[in-house]
Amino acid sequence: MKQRGAKKGKFTAPNIIWATPLYEFLRQCNTTRLKRTILDCGAGSHADRPPPLFLFYQYGYKAYGIEIEKTALAHANRFCKKNTIPLIIIRGDMRMIPFRDEAFSFVYSYNAIMFMTKADIAVAMSEIHRVLRPHGLCYVNFQSVDDPDREPFRRTSFASRLLKSKRFSRYRDNEADIYYRHFEILRKEKRLIEKLWYGRKIIQAYIDYIAKKK
Amino acid sequence: MKQRGAKKGKFTAPNIIWATPLYEFLRQCNTTRLKRTILDCGAGSHADRPPPLFLFYQYGYKAYGIEIEKTALAHANRFCKKNTIPLIIIRGDMRMIPFRDEAFSFVYSYNAIMFMTKADIAVAMSEIHRVLRPHGLCYVNFQSVDDPDREPFRRTSFASRLLKSKRFSRYRDNEADIYYRHFEILRKEKRLIEKLWYGRKIIQAYIDYIAKKK
Repeated sequence: MKQRGAKKGKFTAPNIIWATPLYEFLRQCNTTRLKRTILDCGAGSHADRPPPLFLFYQYGYKAYGIEIEKTALAHANRFCKKNTIPLIIIRGDMRMIPFRDEAFSFVYSYNAIMFMTKADIAVAMSEIHRVLRPHGLCYVNFQSVDDPDREPFRRTSFASRLLKSKRFSRYRDNEADIYYRHFEILRKEKRLIEKLWYGRKIIQAYIDYIAKKK
Repeated sequence: MKQRGAKKGKFTAPNIIWATPLYEFLRQCNTTRLKRTILDCGAGSHADRPPPLFLFYQYGYKAYGIEIEKTALAHANRFCKKNTIPLIIIRGDMRMIPFRDEAFSFVYSYNAIMFMTKADIAVAMSEIHRVLRPHGLCYVNFQSVDDPDREPFRRTSFASRLLKSKRFSRYRDNEADIYYRHFEILRKEKRLIEKLWYGRKIIQAYIDYIAKKK
């Protein structure tokens, strides 16, 4: 990891990860006294970016991840190998999380759950609840109905092939609340974003939840 | 700064600062090749929190701040002295920023500008433009009209006394765009937040801009 302008001789500040909404989740996790074990559901990465779990590793978390898509999994594991970082990222499906009940203090899924159908999202949310220990925290972001992207997935995409999903699942403002019956919602944030993306203006809309298992 | 659970013997990961929306701004600042000089307008802090500028310092930025409110200024400088951190935070008014034209590559104002009247906010925005170098980036968050807080400021508050402001200034979705005529808006994010705050549910609404000076 190259660092431009980092302080010399003191410490090397870690690079800022791309998935910046996770900093708020990390901040809240850090304020608890729970054991620092975390699971990322959808933990793969792009070729040019570290997996977001790297952030939690830097803060002393024992960091586990599952990823259903082989290329994203390979990118994440290549990053770990190249930088000798012991993240444990395995192939796995969040509809059937390959870990025991209450195995983690913290679980998150960033920009991932929307690739599934709503029926599967309900299953995944109950799986996240199952592997989370009581009073553990989870973060999940959902795509909002205000997101204009209604493009169907290509038939060759992993979402079509592995998840039998036709397009992003999108939620009305309170629709995903139903998954949190056995949680206390600590923070819910709807984010309406307009940004320049390679010179083109795009709009995105998400609803992020940080919740504590009762 | 105490660190729970940080890695031993390698580096000490900095604490996550409270003002987590600034991580996205820092990420974007880090991708430029501009000299790492930054100004925080409203740089004071609470007794129990580091000033947000500390984050930028940790990434090698020469970090300046101005703060109009004496107590917040004292808290920030006490933090710097106690931890031997060379932030330069002085008393100052963002309606008349005490620095020369184009002095900074980066300028931000977090949860601060809404304490002023809209007339003063217009002045402050032109001051931010003035002290920013061409192609420099700025971050400012505005309070949205969707924020339910309409409580008038107490007459003894600094906003009443120093800024002649009666309550938070709030903006419609595109109302603050007018301040960005001489900028390119890179990212605009409306955030509608419901959160538990000392056991009570509160609602907040902000509009955040990250923009580049033309």
